[in-house]
Amino acid sequence: MKIIVGQDLLSANASQAGENRVLFKNHRLAVINLISAPGSGKTALLEKTASLLKGKLKLGVVVGDLYTARDAERIERAGVTAVQINTEGVCHLTADMVARALQEVSLDQLNLLFIENVGNLVCPVSFDLGERAKVALLSVAEGSDKPAKYPGIFREAMATVISKVDLLPYTDFDLPACLEEIQQINGNQQFFITSAHSGQGLSQWCAWLEQLAAGKFNGNSIASRS
Amino acid sequence: MKIIVGQDLLSANASQAGENRVLFKNHRLAVINLISAPGSGKTALLEKTASLLKGKLKLGVVVGDLYTARDAERIERAGVTAVQINTEGVCHLTADMVARALQEVSLDQLNLLFIENVGNLVCPVSFDLGERAKVALLSVAEGSDKPAKYPGIFREAMATVISKVDLLPYTDFDLPACLEEIQQINGNQQFFITSAHSGQGLSQWCAWLEQLAAGKFNGNSIASRS
Repeated sequence: MKIIVGQDLLSANASQAGENRVLFKNHRLAVINLISAPGSGKTALLEKTASLLKGKLKLGVVVGDLYTARDAERIERAGVTAVQINTEGVCHLTADMVARALQEVSLDQLNLLFIENVGNLVCPVSFDLGERAKVALLSVAEGSDKPAKYPGIFREAMATVISKVDLLPYTDFDLPACLEEIQQINGNQQFFITSAHSGQGLSQWCAWLEQLAAGKFNGNSIASRS
Repeated sequence: MKIIVGQDLLSANASQAGENRVLFKNHRLAVINLISAPGSGKTALLEKTASLLKGKLKLGVVVGDLYTARDAERIERAGVTAVQINTEGVCHLTADMVARALQEVSLDQLNLLFIENVGNLVCPVSFDLGERAKVALLSVAEGSDKPAKYPGIFREAMATVISKVDLLPYTDFDLPACLEEIQQINGNQQFFITSAHSGQGLSQWCAWLEQLAAGKFNGNSIASRS
């Protein structure tokens, strides 16, 4: 008799995540699992990233949403192949959903794969997708009090992107306090202070992505984290 | 043998939610379950609401967060009794968590109780807390494309509060398109176009709350929805 409980779901996910990780390694592919609340600007960041890395890296995107293909359509308009996963109500991507989406992607053609998770600052953190790095996004419109309230993603992330900093003058977001709070949770991560609107911080972000993607060729310290 | 599976958790929750609903009815208390993404401004809305309704209604707040007592502290500074629930990682409030928190509240002293859910646009929708009405919050910083991507909360909500409209000039949020999309999902709800910063729309919101709270005395059509 098979009893399906929460823990079994997580261990089945871990097993499929391990298979994804082997697949990514075999294709020498750097994979980022991008996690944030709804509306933090994940898709806008990917649109700008696609434009800035054009001719430098070959990107692919797997994008998760409960419903609609809106994000994949936006990313394809930016010139990058995207596969949309509709979870139909499920609040996070699973390794199995990603594995099925990967059948639609020519991994050998890519240097860097983004997995844009469902907009949710909590649940996606528990589900390993086989990625090399989790990256957190936090928009200044959300408030600088969020890291201690939602520590899970900041503890796991290799980098945090603070987004929409063009809105800083119109909010009470305390950037130094926010960065300090994230560092108290996880002192070992990169920060990028960005605006997809003005372009601020995106060249540093793209330089870091190039480093991460290059890791696949020479087995450097970034790659060794996977 | 008792097998705990997802469905059992939901039906156990429904049973406790029914008990909460009876408790609220016996105290003739209007209860709102406030649901949004992290950083949409639930707490800021409650701070302003407390100030505007002072002397008119007696409010109470039960507030859910994964960690910290930050939101309850803010609400108490606004002069309203608040009970903080820390879910310690759980992505939504359950009827049982609320029932335990209610032991700390003198329900007879209140006209209107807010339950500020964990910041999450997906999971809280599935967990009835015994409330009379769910209210959705969507900040203009999150983008006008969200209703069709996260339809569950907009389908269930008796009202949607569009928040942070003071940021409209600095975003590409399409307010008419957003309202139309919400109406396609659920044509039978109230809208409030608000800014806790400027005060816009808050008098209409408070008038609606007064109506909702008054429903408890005369069994009008609002009360009959519970």
